[in-house]
Amino acid sequence: MGSLHAVIMAGGSGTRFWPASRQRRPKQFLPLARGQLLIRAALERLIGLCPVERTWIVTNPQQAKLLGKLLLDFPSSQVLIEPEPRDTAPCIALATATIAARDPAASMVVMPADHVIAPVATFQQLVRRAEALAADDRTLVTFGIAPKHPATGYGYIECGESIDSQAPPAFVAKRFREKPDLATARQFVAAGNFRWNSGIFVWTVAGIRAAMAASNPELAAGSEALSPLLAKGDKRAIGKAWKALPKISIDYGVMEKAQRIAVVAADLAWDDVGSFPALTSVGDVDAHGNAAVLSGGAQQALLESAGNIVYAEGERTVALFGVRDLVVVAVGDAVLVCPKERAADLKVLVEHLRATGRSDLL
Amino acid sequence: MGSLHAVIMAGGSGTRFWPASRQRRPKQFLPLARGQLLIRAALERLIGLCPVERTWIVTNPQQAKLLGKLLLDFPSSQVLIEPEPRDTAPCIALATATIAARDPAASMVVMPADHVIAPVATFQQLVRRAEALAADDRTLVTFGIAPKHPATGYGYIECGESIDSQAPPAFVAKRFREKPDLATARQFVAAGNFRWNSGIFVWTVAGIRAAMAASNPELAAGSEALSPLLAKGDKRAIGKAWKALPKISIDYGVMEKAQRIAVVAADLAWDDVGSFPALTSVGDVDAHGNAAVLSGGAQQALLESAGNIVYAEGERTVALFGVRDLVVVAVGDAVLVCPKERAADLKVLVEHLRATGRSDLL
Repeated sequence: MGSLHAVIMAGGSGTRFWPASRQRRPKQFLPLARGQLLIRAALERLIGLCPVERTWIVTNPQQAKLLGKLLLDFPSSQVLIEPEPRDTAPCIALATATIAARDPAASMVVMPADHVIAPVATFQQLVRRAEALAADDRTLVTFGIAPKHPATGYGYIECGESIDSQAPPAFVAKRFREKPDLATARQFVAAGNFRWNSGIFVWTVAGIRAAMAASNPELAAGSEALSPLLAKGDKRAIGKAWKALPKISIDYGVMEKAQRIAVVAADLAWDDVGSFPALTSVGDVDAHGNAAVLSGGAQQALLESAGNIVYAEGERTVALFGVRDLVVVAVGDAVLVCPKERAADLKVLVEHLRATGRSDLL
Repeated sequence: MGSLHAVIMAGGSGTRFWPASRQRRPKQFLPLARGQLLIRAALERLIGLCPVERTWIVTNPQQAKLLGKLLLDFPSSQVLIEPEPRDTAPCIALATATIAARDPAASMVVMPADHVIAPVATFQQLVRRAEALAADDRTLVTFGIAPKHPATGYGYIECGESIDSQAPPAFVAKRFREKPDLATARQFVAAGNFRWNSGIFVWTVAGIRAAMAASNPELAAGSEALSPLLAKGDKRAIGKAWKALPKISIDYGVMEKAQRIAVVAADLAWDDVGSFPALTSVGDVDAHGNAAVLSGGAQQALLESAGNIVYAEGERTVALFGVRDLVVVAVGDAVLVCPKERAADLKVLVEHLRATGRSDLL
């Protein structure tokens, strides 16, 4: 079995944490992991599993600069730069080409930079289990999260029979199901053999290359073509090859068509921290259901208030008096107040800001 | 008829504009007069009526320092310092003693520093009318505001017969009525001859001294005793004399007992800006009933929001998305969110901050 490499996908830039997150400072750079930046927590999750010289962060040019500032100890040689965003399949193809050039026998664990996962020991145990399942160079392994509620914001994986009798359990994946409507999600949860698709994958270089070749030859060919260009460091040629890659997610592009997928039962605390109300799961929550993420000297003062979410940075105090179920965000140049139930629609506000000439705030 | 002097009472320090107002920066130093500091607007209201060498600001030692910083062109020799707060009667006694030493035949207009009054021309016309009424050295004149609603937060003056046939009208004051309950306030408004007590007074030095002597000899004696001490500038003696003055308001201490009070019908836009919801009257209001007072580069971005009050200072944007009837305040070191209907109770929050060791914010 080859060495394990880790790939942290840090390309995304969402709007659902505005004004804390910005185009130039996406969610993975917010201190949402118990005060730690999500991307820092992702790196710490790998300590003991994978040394830094086998850890890769795939990101865009802007975020690469931010990485250099915020993760001073992470070597820039381990940062892979996507010339432009093309979804997760090209991102993984780039990482695979890079790792293959060093160690064709390597295994890979691939994960988003912006999830909260605990405890670390369980995560590492799951990676080891998945690595063993993927060692046949044919099986792709995905982490399946036991659904806590009929979420409509996640994809689901329908699990079939157990692969073996070892722990933690692993199942044959029968089918990937896209984000369902509520009724379907309820059926999935009631059925008992459906799990949330966490976006965390384990496979070998050989395994993912074979799956790409079988399901998406264009992607596989593009990835092969990238290898010698990366070795030469020819930016222009890399950019051109990059543009030839199909713009598609790894789920649609590869996983849904793959022949052998195993689901490890990832029974750990997992949250993709999709919008401010998720801070109720990952932040500090008081007896009145108020959640807070405070950093850089920020404080709060709550009176006769319940069910609120406070996110604040810097030397300021957020005082709430007599309010319920609000999201209140205070950072250097902006304050946001919206009801919790509208927090998932923040992109509407962000579009409004763009349309009214306030791109300076985005 | 002697010269007119103006006395601006700037001693108060409320809590109902926290966190915009602080102990060291009370309401009169907020830009609530169409972007102007209230105290600056009070001074500008006197232009053409009263030159600066006959304009006096009575305040406490802390605010005197702030005055020096914020009103660079106002001479410190015109600032009268109360050694400690003792309500409005001693404040007026101090101003009277000072003015009497310069010009025993002077008239005085006395007004709070923290009201919004417009238009200025009407205000000045009313002062001139009042000055003429007070010229007999016996009549004390007060500005009576036509009540717009049955307010329970103001004192009322019951007006009797017209004093003369001149305009603007002036009436004999029959009775001062303290802040009424709602039912009583409704009766007052329905009666038609009740006016809000604005706290703006006009009298001569001789007139107010006579009224003090008749109604409150202790106050009158204290004021007389202050005169030579002020001339000498003996701070210790002034402090001692100050402490001997009765701690009482001019309304309770003098006006309610005075024999000859005239009420001029002050039919102008007047607001004592008692708490944040008053910004709906004195701030910029949009088509959805959102009021804003923005200064120092502050901006707002409102979407699907109505009936809110935004107060912001400095280079920051307050974004509201999908909220109603909130007060949102953002200043350098603090953000406040509370429902409009709780804004009058902000002292409760301020007390909570004090009790929880956050006096740094007060």
